[in-house]
Amino acid sequence: MKTQYEQALAGRISPQMTAAACSENVPARKVRDELAAGRAVLPANPAHVRLQPAVVGRAFRTKVNANIGRSAERSSLRGEMRKLQGALAAGADCLMDLSVGPRLIALRRQLLSACRAPFGTVPVYEALNRAENRIEALTEDLLLRVIAEQAEQGVDFMTLHAGLRRSHLRHASRRLAGIVSRGGAVLALWMRKNEKENPLYTAFDGILDICRAHDVTLSLGDGLRPGCLADAGDKAQYAELKTLGELVRRSRRRGVQVMVEGPGHVPFDRIREQMDVEARWCDGAPFYVLGPVVTDVAPGYDHISAAIGATAAAFHGASLLCYVTPAEHLGLPTAAEVHEGVMAFRIAAHAADVAKGLPGARDWDDAMTRARVTFDWKRQFEIALDGKRARKRFLKGGCRLSEGTDYCSMCGAEFCAMKNFQRAFPRRGKTEESEG
Amino acid sequence: MKTQYEQALAGRISPQMTAAACSENVPARKVRDELAAGRAVLPANPAHVRLQPAVVGRAFRTKVNANIGRSAERSSLRGEMRKLQGALAAGADCLMDLSVGPRLIALRRQLLSACRAPFGTVPVYEALNRAENRIEALTEDLLLRVIAEQAEQGVDFMTLHAGLRRSHLRHASRRLAGIVSRGGAVLALWMRKNEKENPLYTAFDGILDICRAHDVTLSLGDGLRPGCLADAGDKAQYAELKTLGELVRRSRRRGVQVMVEGPGHVPFDRIREQMDVEARWCDGAPFYVLGPVVTDVAPGYDHISAAIGATAAAFHGASLLCYVTPAEHLGLPTAAEVHEGVMAFRIAAHAADVAKGLPGARDWDDAMTRARVTFDWKRQFEIALDGKRARKRFLKGGCRLSEGTDYCSMCGAEFCAMKNFQRAFPRRGKTEESEG
Repeated sequence: MKTQYEQALAGRISPQMTAAACSENVPARKVRDELAAGRAVLPANPAHVRLQPAVVGRAFRTKVNANIGRSAERSSLRGEMRKLQGALAAGADCLMDLSVGPRLIALRRQLLSACRAPFGTVPVYEALNRAENRIEALTEDLLLRVIAEQAEQGVDFMTLHAGLRRSHLRHASRRLAGIVSRGGAVLALWMRKNEKENPLYTAFDGILDICRAHDVTLSLGDGLRPGCLADAGDKAQYAELKTLGELVRRSRRRGVQVMVEGPGHVPFDRIREQMDVEARWCDGAPFYVLGPVVTDVAPGYDHISAAIGATAAAFHGASLLCYVTPAEHLGLPTAAEVHEGVMAFRIAAHAADVAKGLPGARDWDDAMTRARVTFDWKRQFEIALDGKRARKRFLKGGCRLSEGTDYCSMCGAEFCAMKNFQRAFPRRGKTEESEG
Repeated sequence: MKTQYEQALAGRISPQMTAAACSENVPARKVRDELAAGRAVLPANPAHVRLQPAVVGRAFRTKVNANIGRSAERSSLRGEMRKLQGALAAGADCLMDLSVGPRLIALRRQLLSACRAPFGTVPVYEALNRAENRIEALTEDLLLRVIAEQAEQGVDFMTLHAGLRRSHLRHASRRLAGIVSRGGAVLALWMRKNEKENPLYTAFDGILDICRAHDVTLSLGDGLRPGCLADAGDKAQYAELKTLGELVRRSRRRGVQVMVEGPGHVPFDRIREQMDVEARWCDGAPFYVLGPVVTDVAPGYDHISAAIGATAAAFHGASLLCYVTPAEHLGLPTAAEVHEGVMAFRIAAHAADVAKGLPGARDWDDAMTRARVTFDWKRQFEIALDGKRARKRFLKGGCRLSEGTDYCSMCGAEFCAMKNFQRAFPRRGKTEESEG
């Protein structure tokens, strides 16, 4: 079996490429060419049955990832299943299960079989559980075994913090927020306790073998992503990013699909720089960013802080946006918070697609505007990002959906600007528009 | 009496300048110099008793305006008072009462006396009510009378769509969304029905006399602001903006403080251009923008779409951000929605202040980070943007505020990255940090 990357390099258009191209409304050869150039990935483990393939890359629609997963203390299979279904219903393009604690295999089996979107994990969590939470007891062997088993199970992409090297730690130790990546902190502690290099780095060839065999897309984790504005773009972050660039090249040489993970917390004015550096050092590998939040002061609203950063990130280069929910920095999200996070990030992704001039992206906005100027409320709620919520809010204002309702409770009937404008220019009135 | 602008030009530092400088933590002469240059305004009508003055301009903290006000159909004095108090408690820097309908004078009296922040209005709404909602019956005299009475009442700044000229209408008639400004649409209809120039334009000298006499800050309304992405930066918008530049110069010549209003709906990539054009054509007058939303497709979430645009706008040049609530495009906001809107916009304003390098802006973020790394939950909720909400959400995860709680339900105790990092680098642990 060849990976999607190898097939693309060989000039072949796979069924997965065709399916992804179809959902993007682009020619399949475009997907193939972007894959071959390494500027896109198509995470599609053949063992993930009923997967609807999606392509991640600059040339395509910006994608949104939703993290679900229980902590050792909280949540249940049923709860996670609700989050998964809620995230997909809200329009998430892919999902990561970040569960920790016991019985992860059974949980993942259920989630995977319910998930038609690309599905990702962070294998170090399961490895740590199997090591009975004794970090120093992790071994290369155990890590490789877990990665192989997850690959066999059908995981489409895996976050592996293989670029966090022992020599980077001294930079991190000087930071304001230190390490805020769960996986990164585990590996840092392992390296300190065992006085050895990162086992994901030393075992990287073995990892590549597994990923190649199962066409698992590598998502090179940023264990040293900044956890506050003060640490953004510092030596620790960039030292690791440079290593990730090396690992991108090693992955490609082995035929493995690869993307790179990014921050985190970044001031709004420095987002562009971060995107440019990744593209340069990582040879254009798709950038998968977490937010970034553009301020540290707004716990409870971090889906908003992060949607702001994510829009700028996607406009300047990121291809995949990991959502942030209102629970970020405070707790594990509920299903309702998962919904909020996905919606905020779909706004960011779409706004960036319009801004980067993705063909056809603005058609959606223009269709909404046409429905607005014709007071076609039903149509507005049909095509809105979250029509259910919009409809409910509209009706709460005491207005009706019926055709004659040519205002909303915001301005009222007498002060509706669109209505007055149409009185001023009657030729552009409702009848003509809806006939046109 | 001299306006703040005239006093600044004369080199004088007024008590209002001193108070505003104090709340900005800058020398008073800086406020004076920015006012004298026309790059800032200090809306402070002497008749507005107990006003706490605030300065609006690029050199200072980005400010957030909250719109309140009933529509003819909806809301009550009590409801508006709750919104006013809620907006101020949430941290809005100034307020506009956009009420329409009858009994506006009494409503405004009550709101003004309760409002210690700068208070703005759109006088054409009251004028229209006095004309018994017959738009064509508006007259220059009536408009001037209403403006004078509101100025006497103590209104600090007024939106007047004086730059919307008759010759601009043909551009607007070709738009996808036409006119979406309430005041702009009223004036457009008036011009069409009466076949005359905009009365606010023809009466502009009289308006300036009133504003000068009461030191009312003119906020030149953008009646032709784009109401959808498709109309952003079109001929209609820019023709009006050019006229606004003329009116800025006329206002300054008369000693009147003046700022300029801006959009609205703008694709993310075009926000910078809009800010640059305003600064150039309007001689650096403070730019007061509404959002802008960066997509049209997200009714119900427009506070998020707009906070994204507002961050970019404030970073690239805007000084005052008019909030957008989740009710935008759907209805009049409730007090809860006012709160959401203010919070989203305070995030945008602060993120932009950090990004533009406003001295001291990032201190807030760094203080939050220090509280985070030391697991000082109480401190986090003391200084957070909305500590009440953050605290409630944290406790919902089953964690306690007590000192020993060194994790949250997000990652759980075993997987807390910050905790593991501190195990790896114990010198940076809790004790030392909290002593330091």
